[in-house]
Amino acid sequence: MCQVSADEAENNTQISQNHVSMAEVLSEEDRERKSKMSAVVVVHGGAWAIPDELAEASVSGVKAAACEGFSALKRGGNAVDAVEAAVRALEDNTVFNAGHGAALNANGEVELDAIIMDGSTLASGAVSCVKNIANPVSLARAVMEKTAHIMLTGRGANMFAESVGVATVPTETLVTEYERKEWEKRKHYVAGVMEDFNSQWAHDTVGAVAVDCAGNVACATSTGGIRNKMVGRVGDSPIIGSGGYADNFSGAVSCTGHGESILKVTLARLILSHIEQGKPVAEASQASLRYMGDRVRGAGGAIAVSPSGQWAATFTTERMAWAAVEDDVLCYCIHKKNLQPSPVAPDSTPSWIEK
Amino acid sequence: MCQVSADEAENNTQISQNHVSMAEVLSEEDRERKSKMSAVVVVHGGAWAIPDELAEASVSGVKAAACEGFSALKRGGNAVDAVEAAVRALEDNTVFNAGHGAALNANGEVELDAIIMDGSTLASGAVSCVKNIANPVSLARAVMEKTAHIMLTGRGANMFAESVGVATVPTETLVTEYERKEWEKRKHYVAGVMEDFNSQWAHDTVGAVAVDCAGNVACATSTGGIRNKMVGRVGDSPIIGSGGYADNFSGAVSCTGHGESILKVTLARLILSHIEQGKPVAEASQASLRYMGDRVRGAGGAIAVSPSGQWAATFTTERMAWAAVEDDVLCYCIHKKNLQPSPVAPDSTPSWIEK
Repeated sequence: MCQVSADEAENNTQISQNHVSMAEVLSEEDRERKSKMSAVVVVHGGAWAIPDELAEASVSGVKAAACEGFSALKRGGNAVDAVEAAVRALEDNTVFNAGHGAALNANGEVELDAIIMDGSTLASGAVSCVKNIANPVSLARAVMEKTAHIMLTGRGANMFAESVGVATVPTETLVTEYERKEWEKRKHYVAGVMEDFNSQWAHDTVGAVAVDCAGNVACATSTGGIRNKMVGRVGDSPIIGSGGYADNFSGAVSCTGHGESILKVTLARLILSHIEQGKPVAEASQASLRYMGDRVRGAGGAIAVSPSGQWAATFTTERMAWAAVEDDVLCYCIHKKNLQPSPVAPDSTPSWIEK
Repeated sequence: MCQVSADEAENNTQISQNHVSMAEVLSEEDRERKSKMSAVVVVHGGAWAIPDELAEASVSGVKAAACEGFSALKRGGNAVDAVEAAVRALEDNTVFNAGHGAALNANGEVELDAIIMDGSTLASGAVSCVKNIANPVSLARAVMEKTAHIMLTGRGANMFAESVGVATVPTETLVTEYERKEWEKRKHYVAGVMEDFNSQWAHDTVGAVAVDCAGNVACATSTGGIRNKMVGRVGDSPIIGSGGYADNFSGAVSCTGHGESILKVTLARLILSHIEQGKPVAEASQASLRYMGDRVRGAGGAIAVSPSGQWAATFTTERMAWAAVEDDVLCYCIHKKNLQPSPVAPDSTPSWIEK
């Protein structure tokens, strides 16, 4: 149902000053040519130094997830339904570090974080450090819809899952052979986590933002966290205002990258604060990621959508796999260097060209 | 060492429109008369409908805590030392719901949350859902200073505590007879938590903000959460940008009140966003609390301090016990109706009069 439009060619060039350079998607002018009430779904598969051997699968994964999200809208679902469907698709795909395919912590365990937020009411649900759950984003949604709380953590989150009939799965089903081997190679590094950060490695959080035809926005983010993280570590992903935020008066954002840096600047709220002050979506995202680089030397990425359907996928890491569906047209990319949006006629399919 | 200046008279009048009316402390003009580099410590003992039988002890507790925090500055400590000392004093005092005196969750257990943040670097440490720790704020500081992470939760937070030699204490030592009786009375209410919210009951989070003579700001917040909360519930207190935030470029804030509402509007960041846009501290706090009331019908309170020493203690609940020390002068209050700041000469001791 989604058309494929972007160039699939890969560009593996490393970018050294990655916390100040930026990747953009369509220009604001391009966005504004579109309907003010376009339904849009944007997804990301994590901003990090995605190795070549994972690139193709990552691109395929975000494309499929964006289509899943958009299909939810076409079936009559709202923005919350769309981001949940998109993130579930990413959680189910073992190439991404969320749900199936999750990273292992310092004890070789899987501890998962997720958030979902409804911009129409500011209602939100989140789980942190939950185990044996295949789709933490759906458990987060259950927290939002079936409790008086916003966040449940650890054992309590699992007790709640059981009480509402969310199935648990054996840990082994969530862990890939690839992840087990990577973890085995690195588990004896005392400074494992910091090395991951410095090499922008293993930051493959997933996320989605959406605006539906009624102008309601939503966001969702899900992750297994940084490989070799301390037991009990909670990063930015399930933290409202950091890993995600959605507000019908400004837009929706899902973030990825070095979690502790994102937390320090509450990146999702920062981007939306810029939008509230009149900045276009792409400029707000760029300014906020640049600030994170300058202030706390953190690299990352964000996808953002406004209630009027403006959207952007922006990152300061080497790569970020992302895809977007707008008006049944699919756009996607993973790298940034030497990529510029091509001139796009109002009714044409967006595409990218290599310079 | 601290002088006592405010009227200790109590006013138990209920205020019906408590989510739109406001309590203020000194006016902005009063604040600006003061030195631009005053060292200031402000503490709160929670914004809620504090019952008469706890009022006097609450006021005594915040007074003592503010003096503890200011003493840390006088001993040469920085803003982080001051907020940690102040919050430790509040955690040690069984009248407050943090550390000793914590509220019990739906299973009759104690699960504690805390955050601390250094505005000079945006470094932060937080623990959520930790058990058997007498001073969670100090454990949060250890997370900030001794790990590559910002937040540790549940079992992992306790494992970290053990690894750095933070003593555990038996649960019974953290629970007061008063709390056990209150919990027993209410544990069979299915909708206990929502009832607590509607009556603004059991929201006695504690917190502190400080600015030191170098202009560095810090915040800390600590809580046992809402009585009868679900196991694993994490409220706003340990969430960066919601329960607290500190940034030398804008100020420091610690929040209290209905946690889920505070999370929905990321209250601490909201207040500081207003300050960044030029609003005085008190006005920024008022506007943000008013917004929280209007948008999500949540009541609460906040203490805030700017790098230049402006400060405010603002709340939309019936009461909030707070105290502040500035230039060796102690101010404090618990109620708001019919209280106005008296005219204050530049060198005089601030005081409040009943109309």
